[in-house]
Amino acid sequence: MTLTDVSTPIASHLEEFQPFFKEMLRSKTALLELVIRYMTRRRGKQVRPALVFLAAAVCGEVGRRSHIGAAMVELLHTATLVHDDVVDEADERRGMASINAVWKNKVAVLVGDFLLSRGLIIAVENEEFDFLRITSGAVRRLSEGELLQIQKSRQRSIDEETYLRIISDKTASLISACCEIGAISTTRDADKHKALRDYGEYVGLAFQIRDDVLDYTSRSKVLGKPVANDLREKKITLPLIYACSQAGTKEAKNIIGMVKSKKLTDENITAIMAFVERNGGIGYAIGRAREFAAIAQKSLDILPDSPAKKSLMAFADYSVSRIK
Amino acid sequence: MTLTDVSTPIASHLEEFQPFFKEMLRSKTALLELVIRYMTRRRGKQVRPALVFLAAAVCGEVGRRSHIGAAMVELLHTATLVHDDVVDEADERRGMASINAVWKNKVAVLVGDFLLSRGLIIAVENEEFDFLRITSGAVRRLSEGELLQIQKSRQRSIDEETYLRIISDKTASLISACCEIGAISTTRDADKHKALRDYGEYVGLAFQIRDDVLDYTSRSKVLGKPVANDLREKKITLPLIYACSQAGTKEAKNIIGMVKSKKLTDENITAIMAFVERNGGIGYAIGRAREFAAIAQKSLDILPDSPAKKSLMAFADYSVSRIK
Repeated sequence: MTLTDVSTPIASHLEEFQPFFKEMLRSKTALLELVIRYMTRRRGKQVRPALVFLAAAVCGEVGRRSHIGAAMVELLHTATLVHDDVVDEADERRGMASINAVWKNKVAVLVGDFLLSRGLIIAVENEEFDFLRITSGAVRRLSEGELLQIQKSRQRSIDEETYLRIISDKTASLISACCEIGAISTTRDADKHKALRDYGEYVGLAFQIRDDVLDYTSRSKVLGKPVANDLREKKITLPLIYACSQAGTKEAKNIIGMVKSKKLTDENITAIMAFVERNGGIGYAIGRAREFAAIAQKSLDILPDSPAKKSLMAFADYSVSRIK
Repeated sequence: MTLTDVSTPIASHLEEFQPFFKEMLRSKTALLELVIRYMTRRRGKQVRPALVFLAAAVCGEVGRRSHIGAAMVELLHTATLVHDDVVDEADERRGMASINAVWKNKVAVLVGDFLLSRGLIIAVENEEFDFLRITSGAVRRLSEGELLQIQKSRQRSIDEETYLRIISDKTASLISACCEIGAISTTRDADKHKALRDYGEYVGLAFQIRDDVLDYTSRSKVLGKPVANDLREKKITLPLIYACSQAGTKEAKNIIGMVKSKKLTDENITAIMAFVERNGGIGYAIGRAREFAAIAQKSLDILPDSPAKKSLMAFADYSVSRIK
């Protein structure tokens, strides 16, 4: 099962969405046009619009409101990516130089703000006030989650509960918003709104845990070395949190000391990974992701069978099993 | 006439506004609390909330809606200041180290996003959809104006029309939003909404032109040297634009060449300032600011006399005559 398979029931809507979204990005400012053209060349996986359309389809007939919702979340998501590039001091994204590497932080911050306001304007123009309520709440949780992660990365310990709060805020919030907005765009049934909101929240948790596991299990194509970006950024994620809880206090302290030290060598990384593996961190994290995916699937119980529902069920499996 | 004098008719509202605004800034994230406490220690002039309350008072009775509007614009303004600190790579603001200098760009971008979303949430919670329409439009213009200025700063020429478009977008847009929101908070009369919107737009233009003039005429307290921050950042503003239009083409080219050169010496700055003075740039810019202030005052014709109206008239004069 691939993302393309999952999108099949709403493929025509995703196709139609392209020119609609590009139109939204128009600006009278040449520099902005240039940056935006550059950005939209690097087309993403479009997970978020796909989720809006699937959630819409599972509750009713995909229509203009669904497209407005999809445009809104994609604008917000793009804005946060642009700001993330500043935040992470990233030099590339999706294999291309990031905007801030090419145009400096200045432009990245301003383009992000422009995209954010553009997303709001679409909602206001179309009087989609529920969309506004949901997305402004999601943006707040996004920024708070990232800030909590920064705060915690300076401390020596982090427990599973705090970890889940962080990933809920920084990842699940927007995925949940996509699904709820999709539902609202095609039905007034509040139970269905809640079902899709819950589905998005739990799929989001599973998705992010899988991401964090992949950081431990993937190896870079060129050098075959572990990716371990999170460790290099001193981010402590679920596999390591669990491994520490299983190991002796002294060994755990020693490992965390390595992660937090200024000079993290390749040997350190190999040692940390072996520690995580030995203490069952990877297996535990995958197990948790599976549990969350199952809760997500269960949330859809109240909805009748349909190709879109089948896709959402499959997307929950995909979020746990994907290899990139 | 000082800002405090201008604020007299709405002083009690500004006082009440303080705890209300602080409450809005609460967060469960300790790092965010810390940054926000740091920020609110450096209390600004509160021009924007004061304008909301004056515009509200001139149209009716200041009330809860006016306070919500004031909180919204102050949150957005604070968000843009935090983002501006990244944008300008500024190391201080109001005499204190900027957030990004203390906590890095990362935190500054995220705190800005948090404040932006907080502003939206207040409006959504209180179903103030007109406030949302106005402010999201203003944020869009703000970011577009800044980006246009960056774009133009790379080019060798800029005309008065482009300059006015930039300052209208980056400064007048939010001041106009403050005044319109204030009006909406106390009356349904669309003519009054327009009167206050226009007032804010033209006062905003006058205010920014005065700012740009002060950059030429102020001297730093410590060294007595010209401030000339704009020139150091290669920003070409109205005094220089006009001076170039009056001088011979060759001389103007030479001066612009100096501004754009990588090494701008103190001698260059003295030469540019003498050029601007000699060609009447300062006087012309002040004259334009006065014209805009007069248009702003004229916009208030339809409103009955009141202490608040007197203050708004005085604020227009203040925006042209202020010395800091």
